[in-house]
Amino acid sequence: MGQSRDRGGLPTARSGGGSRRRKIQKSFNNLKITVLCGFITILVLRGTIGFGNLGGHGANSDSGQKVIEDIDRILREIRSDSDPDDDETPPVDSASNSTSLAADNSTTAAAAAAAAAKNYTLGPKISDWNERRRRWLSENPGFPSQVAGGKPRILLVTGSPPNPCDNPIGDHYLLKSTKNKIDYCRLHGIEIVYNMAHLDRELAGYWAKLPLIRRLMLSHPEVEWIWWMDSDALFTDMAFEIPLSHYDAHNLVIHGYPDLLFAQHSWIALNTGSFLLRNCQWSLDLLDAWAPMGPKGPIREEAGRILTANLKGRPAFEADDQSALIYLLLSQQDRWSDKVYIENSYFLHGFWAGLVERYEEMMDKYHPGLGDERWPFVTHFVGCKPCGSYGDYPVEKCLGSMERAFNFADNQVLRLYGFDHRGLSSPKIRRIRNQTATPLDVKDQLSLQARISSS
Amino acid sequence: MGQSRDRGGLPTARSGGGSRRRKIQKSFNNLKITVLCGFITILVLRGTIGFGNLGGHGANSDSGQKVIEDIDRILREIRSDSDPDDDETPPVDSASNSTSLAADNSTTAAAAAAAAAKNYTLGPKISDWNERRRRWLSENPGFPSQVAGGKPRILLVTGSPPNPCDNPIGDHYLLKSTKNKIDYCRLHGIEIVYNMAHLDRELAGYWAKLPLIRRLMLSHPEVEWIWWMDSDALFTDMAFEIPLSHYDAHNLVIHGYPDLLFAQHSWIALNTGSFLLRNCQWSLDLLDAWAPMGPKGPIREEAGRILTANLKGRPAFEADDQSALIYLLLSQQDRWSDKVYIENSYFLHGFWAGLVERYEEMMDKYHPGLGDERWPFVTHFVGCKPCGSYGDYPVEKCLGSMERAFNFADNQVLRLYGFDHRGLSSPKIRRIRNQTATPLDVKDQLSLQARISSS
Repeated sequence: MGQSRDRGGLPTARSGGGSRRRKIQKSFNNLKITVLCGFITILVLRGTIGFGNLGGHGANSDSGQKVIEDIDRILREIRSDSDPDDDETPPVDSASNSTSLAADNSTTAAAAAAAAAKNYTLGPKISDWNERRRRWLSENPGFPSQVAGGKPRILLVTGSPPNPCDNPIGDHYLLKSTKNKIDYCRLHGIEIVYNMAHLDRELAGYWAKLPLIRRLMLSHPEVEWIWWMDSDALFTDMAFEIPLSHYDAHNLVIHGYPDLLFAQHSWIALNTGSFLLRNCQWSLDLLDAWAPMGPKGPIREEAGRILTANLKGRPAFEADDQSALIYLLLSQQDRWSDKVYIENSYFLHGFWAGLVERYEEMMDKYHPGLGDERWPFVTHFVGCKPCGSYGDYPVEKCLGSMERAFNFADNQVLRLYGFDHRGLSSPKIRRIRNQTATPLDVKDQLSLQARISSS
Repeated sequence: MGQSRDRGGLPTARSGGGSRRRKIQKSFNNLKITVLCGFITILVLRGTIGFGNLGGHGANSDSGQKVIEDIDRILREIRSDSDPDDDETPPVDSASNSTSLAADNSTTAAAAAAAAAKNYTLGPKISDWNERRRRWLSENPGFPSQVAGGKPRILLVTGSPPNPCDNPIGDHYLLKSTKNKIDYCRLHGIEIVYNMAHLDRELAGYWAKLPLIRRLMLSHPEVEWIWWMDSDALFTDMAFEIPLSHYDAHNLVIHGYPDLLFAQHSWIALNTGSFLLRNCQWSLDLLDAWAPMGPKGPIREEAGRILTANLKGRPAFEADDQSALIYLLLSQQDRWSDKVYIENSYFLHGFWAGLVERYEEMMDKYHPGLGDERWPFVTHFVGCKPCGSYGDYPVEKCLGSMERAFNFADNQVLRLYGFDHRGLSSPKIRRIRNQTATPLDVKDQLSLQARISSS
């Protein structure tokens, strides 16, 4: 559900028949706990008895804290080894004419997967959505497709799995990320849907956004644009307004680089962590064409092999929605590309590394509203996976950087109320403007786009 | 920040000079870890060796799971004993003419606290807010105080502390509670402010809502009503619309019982976990009159003694905002009561126990939109404290009940999309309506107020 994907490494999907393996794993975990506990016992005893006086700091509190961290780490490892959520049910052949996939022959398997994939659909085919939507809007003037100021109605869609994160701190950062989105959307008149449900078992994980987007389009004809945004993407320019008028002739707005896409066929030419999709027939058709690589199991695995073989730099793993979209746009360029706006004049998606270290410099030199490398619109923590067990980067670096991004954004809201954070790593705030008996005089002078000092 | 208060028990406030006590506590914690670790070592060794074959279930996985639970519990206890967040700084005399509070004489202390309290203010006195606000609205027609449909603009205000919860599961339920509020507010055209900042160190904890509400009123003249809602309160009637027209002549709408308030002086006669405050001069005056019992330290403690002495059933603990408001309305009845609407025709606040067990019965007999005991508008988990270490009720009961309330509410949203939860305790969903090639025909027949089956 909107989690950033691995840039490398094999997924931890389990095949059937791992029951014995899981039991071995469990016994190994128990031994691990035993050894660590024994070690901790000795460590703490030493700390308590060796520096035994009650007045001591240092060793006692350090080793106590280290003990807690070690125990936490072990618990995380144990949880991550536990049985997979049975929402991730063994994949089924999606079609009624089920082709046997038991054969080990890779050509047969590929052909079978392709056949099954062709039979997968997101839902009954709809061919007249533009006309139906237009009619509904005219019959329901109370639900206009424009909001105050004549802006097209946008629905921001995001979400996370319904269960607690493997890593407890993950839920805290999901909460902060959600507050961040609430703030931006309130300032810009955008509605939010936060999804915590698996609408389609076969399209679980990062693919879950497809059935969700389709469902919301069809249920909300008053919405002009669906804006998907990953849960690990934060708004960092609270003043920036998406220039929707640039996209009047387009239906998909996505961050990327045309050269990387069309010339190099790079698997990171586009980023599906933050994109806009117009509520129209073209988009329904795109979703239908996009989905077939997604169904879990042999289909997704075989599709992954195709994508790795065809996209530059792609590691070997099951098909992900981003690679599949890139492949689709390359292999059916004539059908889709004229309506796709590959946007890189601002950071509709901004990869976090290289941005987060520069926030203070940005505050010194620039101001909100720019949206680009000077003041990134969105900072996206690809690869951090704070909710899961295994990210591609050190946990502390990710969490520290997410905290900085959150506070950098929060400052732009708090200053409207006369406060900011003491530092980008601090949850504490300080007053930066005295209260007054005439608050509305100040209000009229406040601007989201005004400079913010870093000192 | 919007946490429900204890119904009993002394707060865990620390006085100065506890440094040695904390060191003793730390050493005790270390010993606790040592003993437990030693115990766990033996336990796990027995489990691994005694039922040693690799094929066994039962004892190994049970003891492994128990081990994890025990370790978790110890870690929580250790964390809860750790140094308080130094946001909760030692209270200062709020006034420039600081009266010495060192004397042990309770009469002197009470008098001193009263004097200091009189000097505390939320901010510079404002006396002409109605006029200023009216003028600003007329000069800024782009920010009307009414939204679509001529409804007064409401701002829902909620929040939680900026640090991770002591109990990791707490952040997960804060996230779910936030999604719940996003859903209700989207359906009813209400904006949200989610606060995670301490605007006033002296008014921390449950008092934090006062400076926050004042700040938001003054910063948002376009907002007609501020609706404060605790983070542990969930919307459970997604169709219910607050009957704002009933309150044209009132400025504070709060759930409670007049008899409990005026006849019995009960400390739970009103509930400040969910209330509406009109953006006007009267409300600024109320906040100014309400705040003086709040500043942390001797003022709040002395005020607590006064409240316990005067309110029926109130345990001995520092002043809380709810008791203080009750006391204010009783002691200055002539000044305030004519503008206070004590609402109990629907559950603007609904105490969770007694409600959560009946959800299936409600689904069988009634439908959303009623808002009262048949289908409660808000289910409020007073005393559960999922974010903190110590609640008044068993943790499992609280979490299980919160999950049921969340899913009960979520069903009312999901059904619009053709899904519901498999059961009120399950995060998993199932399809309840087939997809169609004509989704807008179905949409026109859907109603938030329609019956929902429990089967």
